[in-house]
Amino acid sequence: MIFTSDTEQKLRSQVRTIEHYGSRMPDAMVDEHLEEVSIIVGQTPMDATRLNRAKKLKAIINVKGNWEPNIDYQEAQKLGIHVLSIAPVMAPAVAEMCVGMAISLGRGIVKNDLLFRSSMERYGIAGNVEAISLYNAKVGFIGYGNLGRALGPLLAPYACDVRIYDPWLSKGYLAQQGYQAASLNEVLQESQYLFLLAGVNQENDGFLSRALLETVRKDACVVLASRSEIVDFDAFLDFAEAGRFRAAIDVYPQEPVDPSSPMRKRRSIIFSPHLAGGMRDSYQRIANSLADEIPQLLRELPPLLLQRAEPRLAAMQTSR
Amino acid sequence: MIFTSDTEQKLRSQVRTIEHYGSRMPDAMVDEHLEEVSIIVGQTPMDATRLNRAKKLKAIINVKGNWEPNIDYQEAQKLGIHVLSIAPVMAPAVAEMCVGMAISLGRGIVKNDLLFRSSMERYGIAGNVEAISLYNAKVGFIGYGNLGRALGPLLAPYACDVRIYDPWLSKGYLAQQGYQAASLNEVLQESQYLFLLAGVNQENDGFLSRALLETVRKDACVVLASRSEIVDFDAFLDFAEAGRFRAAIDVYPQEPVDPSSPMRKRRSIIFSPHLAGGMRDSYQRIANSLADEIPQLLRELPPLLLQRAEPRLAAMQTSR
Amino acid sequence: MIFTSDTEQKLRSQVRTIEHYGSRMPDAMVDEHLEEVSIIVGQTPMDATRLNRAKKLKAIINVKGNWEPNIDYQEAQKLGIHVLSIAPVMAPAVAEMCVGMAISLGRGIVKNDLLFRSSMERYGIAGNVEAISLYNAKVGFIGYGNLGRALGPLLAPYACDVRIYDPWLSKGYLAQQGYQAASLNEVLQESQYLFLLAGVNQENDGFLSRALLETVRKDACVVLASRSEIVDFDAFLDFAEAGRFRAAIDVYPQEPVDPSSPMRKRRSIIFSPHLAGGMRDSYQRIANSLADEIPQLLRELPPLLLQRAEPRLAAMQTSR
Amino acid sequence: MIFTSDTEQKLRSQVRTIEHYGSRMPDAMVDEHLEEVSIIVGQTPMDATRLNRAKKLKAIINVKGNWEPNIDYQEAQKLGIHVLSIAPVMAPAVAEMCVGMAISLGRGIVKNDLLFRSSMERYGIAGNVEAISLYNAKVGFIGYGNLGRALGPLLAPYACDVRIYDPWLSKGYLAQQGYQAASLNEVLQESQYLFLLAGVNQENDGFLSRALLETVRKDACVVLASRSEIVDFDAFLDFAEAGRFRAAIDVYPQEPVDPSSPMRKRRSIIFSPHLAGGMRDSYQRIANSLADEIPQLLRELPPLLLQRAEPRLAAMQTSR
Repeated sequence: MIFTSDTEQKLRSQVRTIEHYGSRMPDAMVDEHLEEVSIIVGQTPMDATRLNRAKKLKAIINVKGNWEPNIDYQEAQKLGIHVLSIAPVMAPAVAEMCVGMAISLGRGIVKNDLLFRSSMERYGIAGNVEAISLYNAKVGFIGYGNLGRALGPLLAPYACDVRIYDPWLSKGYLAQQGYQAASLNEVLQESQYLFLLAGVNQENDGFLSRALLETVRKDACVVLASRSEIVDFDAFLDFAEAGRFRAAIDVYPQEPVDPSSPMRKRRSIIFSPHLAGGMRDSYQRIANSLADEIPQLLRELPPLLLQRAEPRLAAMQTSR
Repeated sequence: MIFTSDTEQKLRSQVRTIEHYGSRMPDAMVDEHLEEVSIIVGQTPMDATRLNRAKKLKAIINVKGNWEPNIDYQEAQKLGIHVLSIAPVMAPAVAEMCVGMAISLGRGIVKNDLLFRSSMERYGIAGNVEAISLYNAKVGFIGYGNLGRALGPLLAPYACDVRIYDPWLSKGYLAQQGYQAASLNEVLQESQYLFLLAGVNQENDGFLSRALLETVRKDACVVLASRSEIVDFDAFLDFAEAGRFRAAIDVYPQEPVDPSSPMRKRRSIIFSPHLAGGMRDSYQRIANSLADEIPQLLRELPPLLLQRAEPRLAAMQTSR
Repeated sequence: MIFTSDTEQKLRSQVRTIEHYGSRMPDAMVDEHLEEVSIIVGQTPMDATRLNRAKKLKAIINVKGNWEPNIDYQEAQKLGIHVLSIAPVMAPAVAEMCVGMAISLGRGIVKNDLLFRSSMERYGIAGNVEAISLYNAKVGFIGYGNLGRALGPLLAPYACDVRIYDPWLSKGYLAQQGYQAASLNEVLQESQYLFLLAGVNQENDGFLSRALLETVRKDACVVLASRSEIVDFDAFLDFAEAGRFRAAIDVYPQEPVDPSSPMRKRRSIIFSPHLAGGMRDSYQRIANSLADEIPQLLRELPPLLLQRAEPRLAAMQTSR
Repeated sequence: MIFTSDTEQKLRSQVRTIEHYGSRMPDAMVDEHLEEVSIIVGQTPMDATRLNRAKKLKAIINVKGNWEPNIDYQEAQKLGIHVLSIAPVMAPAVAEMCVGMAISLGRGIVKNDLLFRSSMERYGIAGNVEAISLYNAKVGFIGYGNLGRALGPLLAPYACDVRIYDPWLSKGYLAQQGYQAASLNEVLQESQYLFLLAGVNQENDGFLSRALLETVRKDACVVLASRSEIVDFDAFLDFAEAGRFRAAIDVYPQEPVDPSSPMRKRRSIIFSPHLAGGMRDSYQRIANSLADEIPQLLRELPPLLLQRAEPRLAAMQTSR
């Protein structure tokens, strides 16, 4: 999907490529080419032994959003090999979906369409009793990584009061980005719109427990966009169903969701089958970024568009 | 709805009010107070005779979005009486809904939620075959009044290529606002997202005819947000149903829509029962604007937040 | 200057022009053409009699920044004749100069260039003892008309805390524009950068008296950009000379300034001989605006780029 | 200057500090504490031996703008020790000065102040014959590092057409930042405002040769803000003096400049004695950044506000 004809052709004219599609490259094929390869695109396992054998290797480019545990991040850093991710390039599509879901929840787009089809709709102010708006709203982000950085600018014209909980970021950095750092409790209790944008790591698996979700502001619009593992998913469904808050969900503990799952009957939730990031536009954007970044890396210049693994944090994300 | 307790109390402490709720003020009541009143809030008929009798009148404030034919706009101008509308204050809520509808159409939020409930959803790229994104999209506005001015900034972070058709506005003005003027044909044929934002007047009733709608770009996302009268509504439904384009509709030729209308079965349309503008936030914003503007008017200073009637255009809008 | 060859030619191809250059058009010439003219560009006297004779007149376009007393503004409004000014088109050049002067004052550009020429410069932090920066600074505007509206966006990236004193504007309007309304005292006492941007009218001639200027924050950077008449000019020079504040001046009670004026020796002031607005770029922008606006007016559509006279306020501005 | 009382106190309450002021810390003192130290602030020499002895060292923070050759950058990376610079925190002050200088050159602020003092000033359009404006101007950056990234947003409201020459950056990255990549020739020949913002390294010492400077657009406003070594300085002075272009200079091959240097007499240049970055506000901003970043580093989290050395490029910058 990434190597569309245009980009592929452009890259091929500049470099020699060794390609394998459909599954991970067989070990024998990896080992055959390891000593001559400059750039790896994909999720090929790269332990310390392989990294040390790959004398010409300049960068490993992960084309999924999450760091995988099959790379020795510390060793790569020692050897000066970049480990990179396309996550920042995938983020805009997710951010757009977050806005669409937030407005759909706040303004009742899905719900009112359904009422209209049943001739049960109400017009104007009578139909807007529960409607809330992003303008000047209290907004909370849980996690401020690639998704948060892409979502922030989309919310800017609504003049929201955005507060961010991210335990890995400093108050001063968030202030420089134009946001206020806040405690988890404050974000949960006060946000009218709550965006769940954190990645998963050793420390935060299921950290949004039933007890914490119970503190979410009454009638908040909650968008679960990053990884389902950060919440107690059953509790999340229960609270949304009970009308404790409104919810939109793009990610699930198991995908595909069991066809007979009772979750599918829950009415106060907007369901999206993991559609936020993986669209044609995203893959085109990734292809363009690779076409731009690979020549940069081959010249031994620093990457500009892709995200670098922080060895300690990448290792934390992957060891679950 | 507008005079919430806070604002009401603040205004009442500054001015003497004569109030009538629920329907238009009876003629006798109007005539009794006409000579002493400084500001009229509401859609009270004001012909030349009344305007000339109202010696202290400084402003008439229409609290609906559209100019009504029951005011002599030319005479009011002659007498130096402002005729004002809250339309610019109502516009942000409509603009937000336009974004929500556009993303719902482009990214399939309503459609995929429904598929999920039927266990027919597809995940990731497989479910996104038809998905399009606002980022860098070709966007067309038909009409650039209050709605367009409110919508523009919400689209800015998506770096769209926005083209505007508005026969009352000059190319230079649109350029100054950051947009490119375009012909109607160009806007219809090239826009991936098409926002119908024009008001209705003598000249443009039903101007988006079946023949013109047939030229809309294949698979465009079309949001009908201002007035249903600007399109041939039946043709609009037909093309949307036939998949010529995707549509979201907030306004209808007759409201409420007939419960048995076959329109309600059409699947490729998002229906919203005139919910775009009239929400609590809008009325609060209107109340705040009046609390701010009325003292300004009483001091014989120009209005700042409300829109002034252009006598000739207001008359055109109302004489249908 | 306004009718550059390009614009002139374009306009001439559309309309018949009656032209007179160098001074005001002679009365006989005006009277000869009055009944057939649609648009007047210039400062031609237009009392009620003339206005009523000009049956086809749609607009009078003042190409100076200030309203003149030779027009009957009320009568023009009654007759539906627009009286327009190019002030908003002239404002960007003035705003740019304001930024240049503010940074020159705050960072000592003029002063340090002079010290360098005398080999008396100091480097780095030693030379920056008095330097202040616009970033996050407290900024005050006195007056928020065309100049303020043009200056605001230029300061936005510095994240200043801008407070505005303008007795004709409401708190809510300024808030909507992104600024905080403030009292005159607050603006004078607290601003690190103070921009004097008000026009002159009956009420405010010399209103920034010696007593008020004495309250200006110690070491503030004060830019006098609109009209010298709003300050007690001698007091202003005295305080600047005494180092009470730093000043940049573009406008003077008498222009040209007397060659032997002692003001010319004052060292803590940056002098600019009325250069802020009247540059080639401004006249080009005015020409373009006329070329855009005149066809609009001839079609009886509202003006878009030029400013309309508010009859009562225009009359106030002119009756000094 | 950096450790102001507030910040110092806050940091001291959190960490134990070992301090030495006025010159580089004596070797004995460094060696005594090397094994226990977590963060080094300053330009202490750190070769491979020292780096390997410093078992607890997490980061070295360079508080000057340029990388020094006394650190083994590759070894630091291998050991996972961050080498950081405050350059991004210093950049806003420099960017502000660049805007002030550009407007001073374009609008003639320094020059016209001097003419006024000699009673030789001309008013309005007559005095503005050579005036040019940033609005819609063609602007070129040579180098797009910290300075360019700080300057860009300050120019945004002027709607300039900014083109950037930076051989280390890709076209796609510059496009993502909102700029167009351009060749050196194009930037030199077409820019009305030319900002010289590049750092110095092995490859670019004196790269703006007399021959290249000769191609600068006639009457361009050129601001030399980063390092004098990137230009043939004598040629630069000659062309500026000859009126080939207008120039503002903040950095010199030797500082202080010889008091008797003939450069001091050159009239078409604005001289600034290395004042662009090192002002009180910058040091306060650096102090705040350290107070924010050091706890982050002690928790083994990635730095957020400071810039990381790219080993290969830092080494290139320093080996001259």
